[in-house]
Amino acid sequence: MTTEVDKNQKLTMIVFDGDLDKAMASFIIATGAAAMGKQVTMFFTFWGLNVLRKDESANVKKPFLEKMFERMMPRGPKKLGLSNMNMAGMGPKVMKKMMKEKNVSSLDELIEMAQDLDVKMVACTMSMDVMGLTQEELIDDLDYAGVASYLSEADEANTNLFI
Amino acid sequence: MTTEVDKNQKLTMIVFDGDLDKAMASFIIATGAAAMGKQVTMFFTFWGLNVLRKDESANVKKPFLEKMFERMMPRGPKKLGLSNMNMAGMGPKVMKKMMKEKNVSSLDELIEMAQDLDVKMVACTMSMDVMGLTQEELIDDLDYAGVASYLSEADEANTNLFI
Amino acid sequence: MTTEVDKNQKLTMIVFDGDLDKAMASFIIATGAAAMGKQVTMFFTFWGLNVLRKDESANVKKPFLEKMFERMMPRGPKKLGLSNMNMAGMGPKVMKKMMKEKNVSSLDELIEMAQDLDVKMVACTMSMDVMGLTQEELIDDLDYAGVASYLSEADEANTNLFI
Repeated sequence: MTTEVDKNQKLTMIVFDGDLDKAMASFIIATGAAAMGKQVTMFFTFWGLNVLRKDESANVKKPFLEKMFERMMPRGPKKLGLSNMNMAGMGPKVMKKMMKEKNVSSLDELIEMAQDLDVKMVACTMSMDVMGLTQEELIDDLDYAGVASYLSEADEANTNLFI
Repeated sequence: MTTEVDKNQKLTMIVFDGDLDKAMASFIIATGAAAMGKQVTMFFTFWGLNVLRKDESANVKKPFLEKMFERMMPRGPKKLGLSNMNMAGMGPKVMKKMMKEKNVSSLDELIEMAQDLDVKMVACTMSMDVMGLTQEELIDDLDYAGVASYLSEADEANTNLFI
Repeated sequence: MTTEVDKNQKLTMIVFDGDLDKAMASFIIATGAAAMGKQVTMFFTFWGLNVLRKDESANVKKPFLEKMFERMMPRGPKKLGLSNMNMAGMGPKVMKKMMKEKNVSSLDELIEMAQDLDVKMVACTMSMDVMGLTQEELIDDLDYAGVASYLSEADEANTNLFI
């Protein structure tokens, strides 16, 4: 007799993009699923890591290219652009205003909500290494892992999205 | 005894992007799956809602920001751009011409085909609210729902894509 | 009695985007999964086909629009841009340098590794037709198929990603 795990109890997401709108979408799905009692794992990789950055500089010493990349990439939820109609930063401002008027939670609030709901947030260590990002530059309470860990978690879940 | 549902009978997609090429890809998968007898649910959110817009203005009264957003976003399949090589609107024209020559259905035709094959097309109500889009501005025969409804449908399907 | 296939033995991906970073992500997942003993099928469609192009021109005779498209699209892994911070080609150079320093395999190496690990790479015939790409312009040892073939493979896999 095999004990069949209920894969509907779990959902995973790879958050590859670092755009405000895609980050919003992924956290709306994550918090919605967690509120329904599902175990949710979000795996942040490449530009998705920018969603997890602290908004102040951590003053970590690093080589020139890493420094340059770090400076050019948006630092945390407040700095993210839109995948569409970004209009040099106007788009995100307009969208945030529209969301606030409709009482939609901000990305900051969604991330906090996800942490309260025990959504597991994993930073991809290989991407961190390539982009020269260190643990002290990212928000607290993250897990750190690689692709093998993601694949094992995906095996346990019915819904696995790449965002 | 549990009655095990065959998850291969169902497929879901979140259509987040509003680009012509991604919309084409999602409708090619949707109509292909429906033609194979699968139940297909497409959940349109954020820019994906533009795919469902009527091409004429519905003259709905709305606040300034919503009006501005509405005017700037592409109105329906004929106005969508490409995610790549858009070249200020030249790209979509070239691609449409190439598709027509190869007898590939246009996006308009694919949407009609999807409706004939009973593909369930759902507009995300939260996104509609944020972007200030109303039901009368979208094509007919849509369903309207939120993230919880999507998650329930995804639980019933083996293949769940985010496009 | 039904023989239940273990869906965790298989993983599929649709590679739609032709950006260096997304291609890297898909091959890192593919080789990781194959190294864990999974059967992996990558289905390349639309811009994703650019990842599979040979870097020299195959001098295939084709109509004007196809020729133009072919010339403008990046020819193979070495020519791909980034989805973010492309900066007119500077971004990919910087990222490649950073990856090399961290001993991360290049896309070329990852593709070779995938082939060694028997990852099944399928070129979408409809996309090839639309974009005017022929088999001799793509790398060797590919499979050629359409959406129905993808859907059948997805039915056999637990994790199905759209990248």
